[in-house]
Amino acid sequence: MNVELFVLGCSGMMPLPGRYLTSVLLRRDGELFLFDCGEATQISLKKLNLKWKKISVILISHMHADHVTGLPGMLMLSSQVERDDPLYIIGPPKLSEYIEANRRILDMYINYKIEVIEVPQGQAGTVFKGDGYYINAFPLNHTKPCLGYSFIEEERPGIFYPEKALELNIPKGNLWSKLQKGDSVELEGGRVITSNMVTGEKRSGRKFSFVTDTTFSPNIMPNVKDSDIFICEGMFTEELVESAAEKKHLTAKQAAEIALNAGGIGNLGLIHYSPRYNDKELVKLLEEAKAVFPNTFLTRDRQIINMKNKD
Amino acid sequence: MNVELFVLGCSGMMPLPGRYLTSVLLRRDGELFLFDCGEATQISLKKLNLKWKKISVILISHMHADHVTGLPGMLMLSSQVERDDPLYIIGPPKLSEYIEANRRILDMYINYKIEVIEVPQGQAGTVFKGDGYYINAFPLNHTKPCLGYSFIEEERPGIFYPEKALELNIPKGNLWSKLQKGDSVELEGGRVITSNMVTGEKRSGRKFSFVTDTTFSPNIMPNVKDSDIFICEGMFTEELVESAAEKKHLTAKQAAEIALNAGGIGNLGLIHYSPRYNDKELVKLLEEAKAVFPNTFLTRDRQIINMKNKD
Repeated sequence: MNVELFVLGCSGMMPLPGRYLTSVLLRRDGELFLFDCGEATQISLKKLNLKWKKISVILISHMHADHVTGLPGMLMLSSQVERDDPLYIIGPPKLSEYIEANRRILDMYINYKIEVIEVPQGQAGTVFKGDGYYINAFPLNHTKPCLGYSFIEEERPGIFYPEKALELNIPKGNLWSKLQKGDSVELEGGRVITSNMVTGEKRSGRKFSFVTDTTFSPNIMPNVKDSDIFICEGMFTEELVESAAEKKHLTAKQAAEIALNAGGIGNLGLIHYSPRYNDKELVKLLEEAKAVFPNTFLTRDRQIINMKNKD
Repeated sequence: MNVELFVLGCSGMMPLPGRYLTSVLLRRDGELFLFDCGEATQISLKKLNLKWKKISVILISHMHADHVTGLPGMLMLSSQVERDDPLYIIGPPKLSEYIEANRRILDMYINYKIEVIEVPQGQAGTVFKGDGYYINAFPLNHTKPCLGYSFIEEERPGIFYPEKALELNIPKGNLWSKLQKGDSVELEGGRVITSNMVTGEKRSGRKFSFVTDTTFSPNIMPNVKDSDIFICEGMFTEELVESAAEKKHLTAKQAAEIALNAGGIGNLGLIHYSPRYNDKELVKLLEEAKAVFPNTFLTRDRQIINMKNKD
């Protein structure tokens, strides 16, 4: 099963011609999950030819204009597309009020169900569960209630050992594939074989974490631990570390420190760049982060990242 | 004095990668006037390197998402730019409520004065006056209160005739330029010369009209009469005339009929195209309109139109 990430935008504060506002889309088995939705996110979505209709869940970090003002336009797309499944929108308090105010004032015609889930300030835990995955939210420390998110696949069955199956005289075919998937089977004669008799230890699924906007805080680390891809705000160079703290944002180096100390991070992708840096200057952010956590990259608009299983 | 139009977007209903939402900016003597502000308008503004700070007035046709959802982001730009002058935002009822709801819910920090002027439903007249120009609003017929706008320059002094000035023994220089500007002057000895003694008849200034979204209505014609540039919704081909009427939109041919029957229209620019037409298919809209009003063109994103005086 493929899991891919699409960077819809990497800019912080305001959209720029070549850098749309911070937004990342995760696609798993044809299902889409959108993380943040600033102005123009829907354009980036169209540029990548991704189908709005396939979005199951939109996750909002916090209620600042650069993270949510793309929502009304996105919800409006409904008038062009038939949609049967509800759309879940998850975020901090005021999310419902924002959606309702815009629907009411702009007379938005929406022909499908919207389920808004507000995470109370300071709370952490699983906010959504689907087939084979779940989504955790955890509090960040910004100028207003703000959430980080992790998309986590459930454990997969262990590696299947055919030699063990042959040893146990299990006939090849349907029974093998059931055991491979983790199910138990009953052989002719009533003998029951459990999956663990022919497979190795269960293997972890993939984990993706998304963190923006926040000050540096050790509380982030246990939440993003073991992420294969950790996309994190790296808004400023270290020169502006004080100003970053004052505005409650992260420097690129701080993002790397979180990645390093969390443990088990595969790759760190920086995002939410200050518009003060032009595209070439972003390399400074990258260098400062790489000095701490070498597996760091700069996200770019329309970048596609294939998330592979570790084993 | 230059008057230029910048087409920031020409799409109706939703922004497309190559066609941002319908928005036109008029620049006169360095001052900017924005007509409609859908999602991503600020990106188009930046692509043209136009300065947000110079926008004096934003004019909103109606309170549908595709005409206003760029406003919150546009207002947010204030945190990056110093601005002393107030920003006037003019539009139909609910405009204030929309701006206030977004400011409140998104905790928008705005460090300059915003003056919102709501035009009561059905009213027409001058909604703004500046140095040498005024802006008229007039009601359109859409699914909710909707306004058309005309930007009109005041009359200019007539052509200056040097031979008449010489005949009257007026010394060249400062006095001539005052008379050219329309002022009266007093000569040595007390003789008063009025401008009309040395100039022709007063000449009209330039007029720009902006009309979207509406059904066909003869009431539009007297308002847009004599526009040098008339930018008007031409959303559908004639094949969809019934559906257009039902949704209260104009076909391209109907836009041309308004231009033809209004009288005195210089050029008609079609805008607010349905996303059902790809860029090549827009030529159908153009052909249908040109058959009625030959001086028609298709607006395109980032198109710049220089509005010259007729004489």
